Amino acid sequence: MTAGSQGDRPVILLLLLCALGPSVSQGGKLLVVPVDGSHWLSLVRPLQPLQQKGHDIVVLAPDASIYIKEEAFYTLKRYPVPFRREDLEETFISLGRTVFEDDPFLKRVIKTYQKIKKDSALLLSACSHLLHNKELMASLTASSFDAVLTDPFLPCGPIVAQYLSVPAVFFLNGLPCSLDFQGTQSPSPPSYVPRYLSFNSDHMTFLQRVKNMFITLSESLLCDMVYSPYGLLASEILQKDMTVRDLMSFGSVWILRSDFVFNFPRPIMPNIVFVGGINCASKKPLSQEFEAYVNASGEHGIVVFSLGSMVSEIPEQKAMEIADALGKIPQTVLWRYTGTPPPNLAKNTKLVKWLPQNDLLGHPKTRAFITHSGSHGIYEGICNGVPMVMMPLFGDQMDNAKRMETRGAGVTLNVLEMSSEDLEKALKAVINEKTYKENIMRLSRLHKDRPIEPLDLAVFWVEFVMRHKGASHLRPAAHDLTWYQYHSLDVIGFLLAVTLTVIFITFKACAFAFRKCFGKKERVKKSHKSKTH
Amino acid sequence: MTAGSQGDRPVILLLLLCALGPSVSQGGKLLVVPVDGSHWLSLVRPLQPLQQKGHDIVVLAPDASIYIKEEAFYTLKRYPVPFRREDLEETFISLGRTVFEDDPFLKRVIKTYQKIKKDSALLLSACSHLLHNKELMASLTASSFDAVLTDPFLPCGPIVAQYLSVPAVFFLNGLPCSLDFQGTQSPSPPSYVPRYLSFNSDHMTFLQRVKNMFITLSESLLCDMVYSPYGLLASEILQKDMTVRDLMSFGSVWILRSDFVFNFPRPIMPNIVFVGGINCASKKPLSQEFEAYVNASGEHGIVVFSLGSMVSEIPEQKAMEIADALGKIPQTVLWRYTGTPPPNLAKNTKLVKWLPQNDLLGHPKTRAFITHSGSHGIYEGICNGVPMVMMPLFGDQMDNAKRMETRGAGVTLNVLEMSSEDLEKALKAVINEKTYKENIMRLSRLHKDRPIEPLDLAVFWVEFVMRHKGASHLRPAAHDLTWYQYHSLDVIGFLLAVTLTVIFITFKACAFAFRKCFGKKERVKKSHKSKTH
Repeated sequence: MTAGSQGDRPVILLLLLCALGPSVSQGGKLLVVPVDGSHWLSLVRPLQPLQQKGHDIVVLAPDASIYIKEEAFYTLKRYPVPFRREDLEETFISLGRTVFEDDPFLKRVIKTYQKIKKDSALLLSACSHLLHNKELMASLTASSFDAVLTDPFLPCGPIVAQYLSVPAVFFLNGLPCSLDFQGTQSPSPPSYVPRYLSFNSDHMTFLQRVKNMFITLSESLLCDMVYSPYGLLASEILQKDMTVRDLMSFGSVWILRSDFVFNFPRPIMPNIVFVGGINCASKKPLSQEFEAYVNASGEHGIVVFSLGSMVSEIPEQKAMEIADALGKIPQTVLWRYTGTPPPNLAKNTKLVKWLPQNDLLGHPKTRAFITHSGSHGIYEGICNGVPMVMMPLFGDQMDNAKRMETRGAGVTLNVLEMSSEDLEKALKAVINEKTYKENIMRLSRLHKDRPIEPLDLAVFWVEFVMRHKGASHLRPAAHDLTWYQYHSLDVIGFLLAVTLTVIFITFKACAFAFRKCFGKKERVKKSHKSKTH
Repeated sequence: MTAGSQGDRPVILLLLLCALGPSVSQGGKLLVVPVDGSHWLSLVRPLQPLQQKGHDIVVLAPDASIYIKEEAFYTLKRYPVPFRREDLEETFISLGRTVFEDDPFLKRVIKTYQKIKKDSALLLSACSHLLHNKELMASLTASSFDAVLTDPFLPCGPIVAQYLSVPAVFFLNGLPCSLDFQGTQSPSPPSYVPRYLSFNSDHMTFLQRVKNMFITLSESLLCDMVYSPYGLLASEILQKDMTVRDLMSFGSVWILRSDFVFNFPRPIMPNIVFVGGINCASKKPLSQEFEAYVNASGEHGIVVFSLGSMVSEIPEQKAMEIADALGKIPQTVLWRYTGTPPPNLAKNTKLVKWLPQNDLLGHPKTRAFITHSGSHGIYEGICNGVPMVMMPLFGDQMDNAKRMETRGAGVTLNVLEMSSEDLEKALKAVINEKTYKENIMRLSRLHKDRPIEPLDLAVFWVEFVMRHKGASHLRPAAHDLTWYQYHSLDVIGFLLAVTLTVIFITFKACAFAFRKCFGKKERVKKSHKSKTH
């Protein structure tokens, strides 16, 4: 062995380490702390490819889950919670039911407040039971996970991640009350970044900007009821003072289920990744039943109608109005509806208990999509280029509808106030007026024209965080500043003080000099005058 | 033909259009308006792959260019300018020379001011000659380009693009005076986003934040001399009032030659793409000459030393100090130096007129890199994981060095003030202390761990803008607001006025009620009293 090759040893070792670096986490361990409901339907997408890449995946779920079920590509760890699956189902279904209750405004507000309070207490209790389950938490600690993948819509996952001292990847659509902006330190000027539930677009009138500012100022109060208990729970579990903002700041990478074909352009941060349309990827051929419906629809094609999984029934009067409108278009309507069939249902309308929404929307014979404008449905509409009639019901659905309407890709209806004629008119418009189809096709082209598929991107960033034990190089220094430092208030104060002092001293000096120069003369003059008198 | 298939026609046509969409621009036309000097060395990278994808590329260059030359993969269109290539070379070389002139501070400031004034007038004259070249501009208009690819460091390209009504892709490292933040509408809080030439990191002390704020407040004045003439030129050519900010706002997509391994995390916008390290991709095996140097270096390996293409000579005293330090390390030093060899040059130091920097840095025997910390060199150091001794000379080089130093990947020296011992100590530190190598290797791993290669990303986004005639869906609404609207000053004023009015009215009403209730009693009491008297 020569001296030269000996000298190379540390370098070769380092190079080896470097080469090994990215593959160290091949066969890593990922803990998934999901949120039940439609949130889970997207979060589950990257799990199978991650498992195929050799990672062990453990999904934590309450034993009273609705959507989260056993799958071959992960280990499901269930934990006991103080409620039954039926209780949880009731919270979901009652959310859909309350939409159609025609109460006066104040009563609605009070009922909504009470419902949110009750439901969030229920969901919090699940989190509390998980975190106080000493045996389970100890076994999780012993498992030495590389990362936690979680939806911080209910910030239980961030507490688990911090308890385990494991970096977290956040996977979500968005958060209410600008918690996502706060958690990422992403600036969001209220002058053009519309707030959650504002129903504003990015181009606002003066009064819309006033409304947006008003929501901005008040949203921390609005969300306090749901979110602040998680801060208290975290403080107790982690044995240090924690706020919800601290929990949200823990995300190494934020994978957002949106993009700027759907959302309005706004400032973002380097650790935010966009995977809008991740739910459109898996397409299957239609089953015989649905193939038959579509084929029988003739030249006019079909309309797909679903108000999402939370709305199973509609008051009879409303259902009849809808059925009436559907009967007046020449298309075959496939309506996902589990309630009692309205008596006036026309021949062209087929009620089904479930429908393969994305596969149907992908069929060239689909002419329109009637949707509650949940984020999943909207993206399926965009991916497949189907113009929409939107009947937003709650949560972000009004904002989603506003985005599509602004782009001319659909028509929004108020499900409570609309008449049968309104629906008929809206349907005929999106089906027959070329602009709707053209606009949604343009959005579809833009959305699909991307350098990397959303699913691959999500998988990449989860693995990135696993490989590098976080993404600290993407963490802005803003997290380490107080609010007044962030806004440079101390610096501005200092500069103002310096400027004022300089002005004051200059003024005093000038005044002194003035007195010295002219004061004497004045006195001289005066004394001179007095002498002449 | 059935009725059904007839009805499908418009849908099938639309689907066809959709499928054709992304490939319409295959065989598109791209106009490149580059900036000469090192800027060109990166901008040229995506041109060959773009040409291979079937696009016609026309590069516009003054007939007095230094770096921009004929190549097989583009058509070079030269235009006459009122200076010679030698004049331009002199501006570059004198920039390197002035660095070593040991003048008193005030004289340096005045000389720098005069030099910038003179050089920017020269470069502006090239732009003016291009824009007033009616024949050339007419032929460009007739060519119907799909997009303009340009470096807005000198904003001539944006004027050309607007004149031709063609979308522009900006390709750059960054802009002085926050023009890039302004152009993209990217917020940049001075509390943690260090300003150009501030030499601050993202974690600043109070006084550093004061300095950063001071630069923020004054930078528009500083850059006015260089940039405002382009606004005047644009106003003349485009026949409408234009500012530099308007020119910068014209970029559909901003391709930035950096990433967050090098730069500090800060807010970004959806139309900003990062391709840091795009210059590292093309690696070749070493020529026999350099292979021989490296092989002969033995166990200690080599050190690569270059102060960039603008510095060809160093004052003899400084060169001797450097040569002295280089002679005291056991490594072989390859020094790119075209000046007179210093008389004390040690045996281990080889002077070369040119060196294959990236290929040498990629050799496992390379132990350190002495660099002026230009952005290209820094990225070659990062890509190849070589710790650096940095001697920043001008422009963004001090800021670049600060970034690497903050990450513990190198040592910064003041080339004017450093002694021979300082250089020797710095070299021995980065070569022998493990942390420097470990830190640069960590940065290298993070930098290379990306879902898509920077060159592919640059090519994708240029083609995206060509395909979709811009990227209007990524343009933030902030561009359409006045400064007081953007900062919601009108809204805040309105809300304050409303609040004050409500307080005033409430106060007046209370006072009135108080007077009504108690005022009477008072009077009654008084009259009662007066009666009793």
